[in-house]
Amino acid sequence: MLDVFFNPSSIAVVGATPKEGKVGRVILENLKSKYKGMIYPVNPHYQEILGLKTYSNLQEIPGRVDLAVIATPARTVPQIIEDAGLKGVRGVIIISGGFRETGTQEGLALEEEVKKLASRYGIRIIGPNCLGVLDNWSGVDTFFLPEDKMKRPPKGNVSIISQSGAFASALLDWMSIHGYGVSKVVSFGNKVDVDEVELLEYLSTDPTTNVVFVYLEGVREGRGRDFVRIAKRVSEVKPVVVYKAGKTSRGGVAASSHTAALAGNYEVYKSVFRQTGIIEAESFDEIMDLVKVLSTQPLLKGRRVYIITDAGGVGVMLTDAIELNGLEVPETPPDLKEKLKRILPPHCILGNPIDLTGDADDERFIKVLEEVLPRSDVDAVVIVALPQIPGLRGELFEYIAKARKYGKPVLVVIIGGEIASKYKKMLEEQGVPVFESPERLAKALRALYIYSLIRFQRGH
Amino acid sequence: MLDVFFNPSSIAVVGATPKEGKVGRVILENLKSKYKGMIYPVNPHYQEILGLKTYSNLQEIPGRVDLAVIATPARTVPQIIEDAGLKGVRGVIIISGGFRETGTQEGLALEEEVKKLASRYGIRIIGPNCLGVLDNWSGVDTFFLPEDKMKRPPKGNVSIISQSGAFASALLDWMSIHGYGVSKVVSFGNKVDVDEVELLEYLSTDPTTNVVFVYLEGVREGRGRDFVRIAKRVSEVKPVVVYKAGKTSRGGVAASSHTAALAGNYEVYKSVFRQTGIIEAESFDEIMDLVKVLSTQPLLKGRRVYIITDAGGVGVMLTDAIELNGLEVPETPPDLKEKLKRILPPHCILGNPIDLTGDADDERFIKVLEEVLPRSDVDAVVIVALPQIPGLRGELFEYIAKARKYGKPVLVVIIGGEIASKYKKMLEEQGVPVFESPERLAKALRALYIYSLIRFQRGH
Repeated sequence: MLDVFFNPSSIAVVGATPKEGKVGRVILENLKSKYKGMIYPVNPHYQEILGLKTYSNLQEIPGRVDLAVIATPARTVPQIIEDAGLKGVRGVIIISGGFRETGTQEGLALEEEVKKLASRYGIRIIGPNCLGVLDNWSGVDTFFLPEDKMKRPPKGNVSIISQSGAFASALLDWMSIHGYGVSKVVSFGNKVDVDEVELLEYLSTDPTTNVVFVYLEGVREGRGRDFVRIAKRVSEVKPVVVYKAGKTSRGGVAASSHTAALAGNYEVYKSVFRQTGIIEAESFDEIMDLVKVLSTQPLLKGRRVYIITDAGGVGVMLTDAIELNGLEVPETPPDLKEKLKRILPPHCILGNPIDLTGDADDERFIKVLEEVLPRSDVDAVVIVALPQIPGLRGELFEYIAKARKYGKPVLVVIIGGEIASKYKKMLEEQGVPVFESPERLAKALRALYIYSLIRFQRGH
Repeated sequence: MLDVFFNPSSIAVVGATPKEGKVGRVILENLKSKYKGMIYPVNPHYQEILGLKTYSNLQEIPGRVDLAVIATPARTVPQIIEDAGLKGVRGVIIISGGFRETGTQEGLALEEEVKKLASRYGIRIIGPNCLGVLDNWSGVDTFFLPEDKMKRPPKGNVSIISQSGAFASALLDWMSIHGYGVSKVVSFGNKVDVDEVELLEYLSTDPTTNVVFVYLEGVREGRGRDFVRIAKRVSEVKPVVVYKAGKTSRGGVAASSHTAALAGNYEVYKSVFRQTGIIEAESFDEIMDLVKVLSTQPLLKGRRVYIITDAGGVGVMLTDAIELNGLEVPETPPDLKEKLKRILPPHCILGNPIDLTGDADDERFIKVLEEVLPRSDVDAVVIVALPQIPGLRGELFEYIAKARKYGKPVLVVIIGGEIASKYKKMLEEQGVPVFESPERLAKALRALYIYSLIRFQRGH
């Protein structure tokens, strides 16, 4: 049903304009450069915009129109919805502001009218007062920020549902330089129709989405039960990461000024997350930390984590962090110790963390990994490979990139400057999560463990 | 007393060598390129190394030798200490490993012998088994990693004491690309003599150190009382940030394998930190977050934080985070609301967060800041300036850089890609802390608040 927003065969842009910097121009330009279907600019004052034949209204367009994007003043929107209905348009994205969010009687009335008209004609609406849809696979892009203000991340498998347009665009811009790929992003503004519940359901069957991130202030009144039901079902298929804004009472007040959201009681939301299998990101950093681990790593079958390090201190930090997050760093079993003793110089430490010390090289790491990775009493492996030591030349990282064949989570800690960034990039491009912070790694691993428990409990 | 390690008038490098990649060569090269005093290579097999006249032992050197750096096998070290004593050397940095950390009887005996000899001659020792000293102001640099493995940060005012050499070098490499400057760094390895307590005391009067960061596994047995006494005194003068490794019992085991540290009971350490005014960094990210806020911002006189934002969602996130960290985001007082109403368009939200919305521009931000910053009921200001919106062109950031004249903490949230990085860099170079994560900003502000309380309580 929502497919019309992501895979329309044609799009009309109402309010298209050739004027530099205007919303109607940015959208038209973005669509022109990426979207492969038919594009119909609509504006009574022009016959042609950016080389495309332009129509004075929706009804005048000769071909079928699947999706209409509206970027005209609020007061003009009801008539456009009327036209869309008569034309047989199935989905409308209303970018325009000037509705309920103004807090005025007039804005509220306009919003109600739009809602009534759309429902009369069976038109689905995203918005108003939103950035709309960005689909990196189909090329639909109604985010009206030009590339130089908001860089688009490459095609990928993370989808995002956001109650805050500004946060979504900042996050996308951030993701674009941090190597994250994106599938679909939706900013739904005042959500008179399509909301997070329906989007979540839609994304659960989307083949290009591996993980869904939701920025949530509050679920619409009356949609609580649906949210629980759908979230439960989606979590069984793919991980859903939620950042809940409006946790405190002052935050709740801010949320209600912002999106009129009923931020509600945070404890209630927390219990809903637990109940449904939603994974909560408790901070900005955690959002992408969880996304990158949940979207790349196999499920975690137990709590036993082994640490192999070239830096004793970071081994200690990581041991603390993992234990504090409810996982275990068990003592190396005697038979493994025996084997390691045979292949390692005497100054190496065989306990877990297995400390290969500062004179380690690629070969020493790989020999140990070959012993550790296949063992059934090892559930996950974390490799601390600080690249400042002279012996690391890159082969270790190539080996790690291929370690996924062991079917268990393998994560890496690299701290440093330019060389560190190079190795990090190389590993992450191959789906190996790399962290600087031992604590953030441990939290993400904990999230993977919790999600794995849910999946196993429900028999998947 | 420790000045000889940081400001020696001459340095001998025992174990200097022309062989590429060897410790004795890297140290000599680094000293040659940065240190302005006399440098004497010592190696019986050469007459000249890297163009410097080379001596076969310390006693043969004609001039005075303040500091000797030793990078020869452990078994040769006692004789070198003997020579140093006879030569009148006052400080020795023993880079060499092969002592107590090997866990062998022989290593332990060598370490005891070195200790006895040094104390007989009144020589102070850093090490053995360490990276030694990096002083960006005097050019002393015994860190034996070449620049292409570990980039040195620029001159600055953060000093670091680290029980882990590898962690220190990774952190320095990391700081070098994240815009942090460094004054002095010490890695003391097995610490047979100089330890964190004495270094902390020394740094408290160092004019180029504004803030001290300590990576700590455990204080040496019998030094607990001294640590408390000195830490208390130092915190009254400048902030001390500590990362404690070995928090959990498994982490403690790892720490004792790593540096033979008595990691002790974490709760005891926590209470020592509270008692002395040490600020604890609870995670890797927090280390530099706290350092950058504590080293650049004035003390925080109260808990009332005002948020001025162009992104409602991030305003909500920040409100939650600040309130959850024990500070307040109070409702905007009526008289300020009245003033803001007059200067802002009607769709802006005047409550705190003050939401200037996505059509804000530099001018709108500056007008509001001019009202908010001078008020006596505003203790700190956080500006959320997501640069994706069209209206931000840079003047706001120039204004913020000059806002320190108001004598209160001003912090900034910027989330994004390339433009965001550019603005962040510009602001941080001028001492304005910039965060991506609302939660990390709030934690750092909380640390500043706690540190301010301590300073005010003690009458500073």
